[in-house]
Amino acid sequence: MKHIYFDYASTSPTDPEVIKAMEPYFFEQFGNPSSPHTFGRQANKALQEARESVAKFLGAKSEEIIFNSGGTEGNNHAILGIAHSLRDKGRHIIVSPVEHHSVLEPVEFLRKEGYKITYLPVDSAGQVNPEDVKRSITPETILIAVMHASNEIGTIQPVEDIGRIAKEFKIPFLVDAVQTAGHIPVNVDAIGADFLSLSAHKFYGPKGVGALYIRRGMKVSPFLRGGDQESSRRASTQNLAGIVGLAKAIEICQQKMKEESAFQQKLRNRLLEEIPRRIPSVKINGHLTERLPNNAHFSFEKVEGESLLMSLDMQGIAASMGSACTSGAMEPSHVLRAIGLSDELAFGSLRLTIGRWTTEKDVDYLLEKLPDIVTSLRI
Amino acid sequence: MKHIYFDYASTSPTDPEVIKAMEPYFFEQFGNPSSPHTFGRQANKALQEARESVAKFLGAKSEEIIFNSGGTEGNNHAILGIAHSLRDKGRHIIVSPVEHHSVLEPVEFLRKEGYKITYLPVDSAGQVNPEDVKRSITPETILIAVMHASNEIGTIQPVEDIGRIAKEFKIPFLVDAVQTAGHIPVNVDAIGADFLSLSAHKFYGPKGVGALYIRRGMKVSPFLRGGDQESSRRASTQNLAGIVGLAKAIEICQQKMKEESAFQQKLRNRLLEEIPRRIPSVKINGHLTERLPNNAHFSFEKVEGESLLMSLDMQGIAASMGSACTSGAMEPSHVLRAIGLSDELAFGSLRLTIGRWTTEKDVDYLLEKLPDIVTSLRI
Repeated sequence: MKHIYFDYASTSPTDPEVIKAMEPYFFEQFGNPSSPHTFGRQANKALQEARESVAKFLGAKSEEIIFNSGGTEGNNHAILGIAHSLRDKGRHIIVSPVEHHSVLEPVEFLRKEGYKITYLPVDSAGQVNPEDVKRSITPETILIAVMHASNEIGTIQPVEDIGRIAKEFKIPFLVDAVQTAGHIPVNVDAIGADFLSLSAHKFYGPKGVGALYIRRGMKVSPFLRGGDQESSRRASTQNLAGIVGLAKAIEICQQKMKEESAFQQKLRNRLLEEIPRRIPSVKINGHLTERLPNNAHFSFEKVEGESLLMSLDMQGIAASMGSACTSGAMEPSHVLRAIGLSDELAFGSLRLTIGRWTTEKDVDYLLEKLPDIVTSLRI
Repeated sequence: MKHIYFDYASTSPTDPEVIKAMEPYFFEQFGNPSSPHTFGRQANKALQEARESVAKFLGAKSEEIIFNSGGTEGNNHAILGIAHSLRDKGRHIIVSPVEHHSVLEPVEFLRKEGYKITYLPVDSAGQVNPEDVKRSITPETILIAVMHASNEIGTIQPVEDIGRIAKEFKIPFLVDAVQTAGHIPVNVDAIGADFLSLSAHKFYGPKGVGALYIRRGMKVSPFLRGGDQESSRRASTQNLAGIVGLAKAIEICQQKMKEESAFQQKLRNRLLEEIPRRIPSVKINGHLTERLPNNAHFSFEKVEGESLLMSLDMQGIAASMGSACTSGAMEPSHVLRAIGLSDELAFGSLRLTIGRWTTEKDVDYLLEKLPDIVTSLRI
């Protein structure tokens, strides 16, 4: 049976070149980077080289990068760490309602602890208006959190404009770049991000490793407390093989970005054009131009999304409704609600995300199978 | 040049069999365990099998195991999560003073937040007296934390007796088993642990992955907030390759434990016997019998430990003073202080920890080199 993967936004295979780069760090160069002996110094050298690579990609200094376990940890660390370190300054947070759960859940936790949260409005494409950010700022505001691009509908936010406002008002700005790092340019100064999170497995690196950019001078309590690793900002023995893999993955993405992005956009545009042409009563969700190159997201009238996914899976096609992190949830997606979709349309949604190993033929196959499946489910 | 590793307690190489077990989960079976499609279901099956393996090893139920990024996260999660979920019950914590920093630092954080902390006394071998635990309990006590064995001096604590007291008084009991899991039997019911943390890289698994046992019915807030992974107790896409590696590593340890433990103990006993025989003015630290099979720990009078490590390293021998997590620290080890060592002896300490690939010849070489090095440093 075919196994065609249209779910790269959930997770991606680790690139064989990345696996190769990681291999020496399991058995041969296995030292603990904190150990002062030869094994440790070798490990520490590899660690610092990886840090340089990631810093270079983000336009940051290497001491502004800390390695962690992934995007969820990065977002939790920034939000809860800022809230703790700035609690005497204020307890107000501004956040978009279309953030990933790893942003919304720690924010909701803080709300229950007495913090005041402003959820920004978004338009029908899911974009925040920077003017709304500006209007929401109070003397109590300690954090603005707006993601770089949506993991569900692919909409890219006007983060540069929000970054300028954050800078003007001297408010820390967190950008969840989990969906963009490795796929489109991510420069912390261009964006104006003070905190920026990324996760290796979203760009052909291994699962379980990520990085958090922390702009020099920013106050943030540590999230993991213990040893002195990562300049005492993240205790725990570093996952050296994973970190080397993350760095290698981002280097490959940087080299291939222009070409990959153009090719993926071409395939994706075929989906955006052909699916509404071949299937009636379909809505494209998300921004048409300010959009991740690899994301297509649709809502089908009178189709139950879970059944659609199962039918696609039976044809060997892996896709999703939105975030894998909330699959099995009985609630419609908070993102689709925020952009004003009815529950019916939200439950009838399909996210197709493509990546390094997606081919023209995969798209042909999907376009061949999808119309019949939708028709059969609508009967 | 020789490269001989006597620092297994800091970190260990990943066993080649473990690497082999992990390999398919990077590129072929790379799915996100939360995805409902075939790729996801395959991944989820591997995840659940790994959970079963770990549960079996610990004598636990699989739903009592959550996977995380390592020992530091497990200890932080248990301590900060219990403190949060039981804050209306009380704010008193009982802890041994010889815990790893990943226990002491979150406890110290809570102290600054207004929690009351009782640091238990320890004897000159570093052991806690269970009667002291009993005497310290108040109606406000919400947590007892005593490690299974010391990462520095190797002393095994009377955790079973403490577990019985914790159960009698219905107080959650956290056992940091990072140094024991994979090396000596760790059974959560025998110990009476309600929370137990372990880390794969300490038993020939990969770095960056660990597990936390949480006894059914125990209240603990999540540490990472976001998606619904790990029964909503630990958000973040699971590090599947790492988790499979952890499970494989623990299976191998379980099979080889008797034999490995006996061999390591034999080598270790040579160190404990020969070093004081060949070198004057040396003190063995830690308990002589209630001790990890792979740990030897000494203090040399009139020797500067950092210089000793550097001299050993120049002969190709990797060793440590204590914990790698605090190397470079200017303070003497809190563990050695707690057992009553003078600063001079604490700064003159040497930890030798052996493992799967240590040979008789390695021990011979060390025993040949060490006396001259100590003599030269004492001049």
